[in-house]
Amino acid sequence: MKTMQGLWLEDQVLTYRKDLPVPAPQAGEALIKTRLAGICATDLEMTRGYYPFTGVPGHEFVGEVVEAPGFEDWVGQRVVGEINLVCGICRACRAGRGHHCEERRVLGLLGKDGVLADYFTLPIENLHPVPETLPDEAAVFTELLAAALEVEQQVHIQPDMKALVVGAGRLGLLIAQVLKLNGCDLAVLVRRQAQVQLLARWGIPAVDERTLTKGAADLVVEATGSPAGFALAREALRPAGTLILKSAFAGDMRVNLSKLVVDEIRLVGSRCGPFASALRLLTAGLVDTASLVSRRYTLAQGVQAFEQAAAHGVLKVLVSGA
Amino acid sequence: MKTMQGLWLEDQVLTYRKDLPVPAPQAGEALIKTRLAGICATDLEMTRGYYPFTGVPGHEFVGEVVEAPGFEDWVGQRVVGEINLVCGICRACRAGRGHHCEERRVLGLLGKDGVLADYFTLPIENLHPVPETLPDEAAVFTELLAAALEVEQQVHIQPDMKALVVGAGRLGLLIAQVLKLNGCDLAVLVRRQAQVQLLARWGIPAVDERTLTKGAADLVVEATGSPAGFALAREALRPAGTLILKSAFAGDMRVNLSKLVVDEIRLVGSRCGPFASALRLLTAGLVDTASLVSRRYTLAQGVQAFEQAAAHGVLKVLVSGA
Repeated sequence: MKTMQGLWLEDQVLTYRKDLPVPAPQAGEALIKTRLAGICATDLEMTRGYYPFTGVPGHEFVGEVVEAPGFEDWVGQRVVGEINLVCGICRACRAGRGHHCEERRVLGLLGKDGVLADYFTLPIENLHPVPETLPDEAAVFTELLAAALEVEQQVHIQPDMKALVVGAGRLGLLIAQVLKLNGCDLAVLVRRQAQVQLLARWGIPAVDERTLTKGAADLVVEATGSPAGFALAREALRPAGTLILKSAFAGDMRVNLSKLVVDEIRLVGSRCGPFASALRLLTAGLVDTASLVSRRYTLAQGVQAFEQAAAHGVLKVLVSGA
Repeated sequence: MKTMQGLWLEDQVLTYRKDLPVPAPQAGEALIKTRLAGICATDLEMTRGYYPFTGVPGHEFVGEVVEAPGFEDWVGQRVVGEINLVCGICRACRAGRGHHCEERRVLGLLGKDGVLADYFTLPIENLHPVPETLPDEAAVFTELLAAALEVEQQVHIQPDMKALVVGAGRLGLLIAQVLKLNGCDLAVLVRRQAQVQLLARWGIPAVDERTLTKGAADLVVEATGSPAGFALAREALRPAGTLILKSAFAGDMRVNLSKLVVDEIRLVGSRCGPFASALRLLTAGLVDTASLVSRRYTLAQGVQAFEQAAAHGVLKVLVSGA
């Protein structure tokens, strides 16, 4: 059995191992060599018991196809890939909502080993070739940018809208860049001075809890996953406005549903988005990802990389393949 | 000072009085004689301290204009009327969302005496003439039917959708009738046998907690305002489905927002709707309101009428004007 290096999560403990088996591609799958991977908030949540996952974590990647039985023209191709492995035959799949497949596995998150190792496998149907001009450092943001774009898949965002993003973390900053592209009257609610400067460089105004205008935003995107963030999002929203929930919240939350009825609020949960659109924006250079990279580690430094990614004020931490 | 009979709510206590002053129409207002009024769940909630209102309750009515200074051609006209009194100049009004006017008063609910008296006033701009062929007993349902139609104002309901209405009270039964009109694969979650029979007469299948299909409905309308109803609505909904909240809930509720994110659920608060559309459906005879009337009282019996309206299994209770 061939072995490889990689990270291993078990009982919420992350370790670096050199004895992981190299996975064998199943029918329709490719074996992919990890070129560059990203650590995401969900990865961190898993190490905190967000839900039980045992295996190789990681789902943000740029890789190179090294084997693709029956699909040999993919070999050597640099790829990014969608993270939901779907059955194709359940009600959700048949209705064209593969992201919600009732039998789905999710790369590095649910029933499928992830990308923080030398190699991993993924169905060919999940893969998107990366345009030659797009460097790994930008392409690795495809999955996260797609999640940001899901907001625009779900809600018709008009250029004259007043929009607010609550939270200036990795995802919030991508959502803000995406919304700015359609002419919105946009602001981002931030807590850290560093993020104010970053937003200013992009021409996006920052507000804080004191300067926030209440009851005026047509659209608010909550990207903190905290009760405080939700409360501020709700305050900022106008009656009959739309509040998009972009981050997972730990446990239940107390919500005044009567107020949602009286104010006719739309609450929209939002998760994975369109990869092809994300690749187009990245290739066109319309989204700044370089400013979002905080630090880069090797796989052997992976445990340290997770610690760094969890530190306050840190944006994207990347992990290079061998 | 001219006096009149009517109901009076103060400190959550409802009384029948004969010494209420007949209101004087302000500029742009009409004085209206109540012909027939309905008692609504919100009226009942006010008597339970839902929120503080002092004055004449009641907002569902058919009336006759008896004075309309400057608008004399309205005198003698049989009318129904929209319940939000709006300022016309705030942000919400200017944006065409009068229902959410920041300065609004609401007939019989907020800062404006209602219809459960011999007379009341309302701005002319709120009034809709009732077609001659439409009897009072049907026209009195205009406001409630408009609220049911608001669901279709807010969400594009496609004829091939699988829809569920949770709750077969006054509003739930109107929503079900409205959804049936567009060809939906519709069911209503009910608790009472009488409602099963009523629905069967309209050709609408009833389900209960045991026969409810889980995770399959594209659209669920919650019309109970109870935590149990919300939980069932959530269970019935498919991923990426839409849950419409049509009833006020008492206090906060615990909601798993993470599940909303993962399942990409749309939660839509829904309140007042389009009167003209409701009148058109009623006039066309497309909605059965006669079956929804439980009992009819006089104004002098108004306190008893409220008690009856609050009893289990009772549908619409009407109160006749003098």
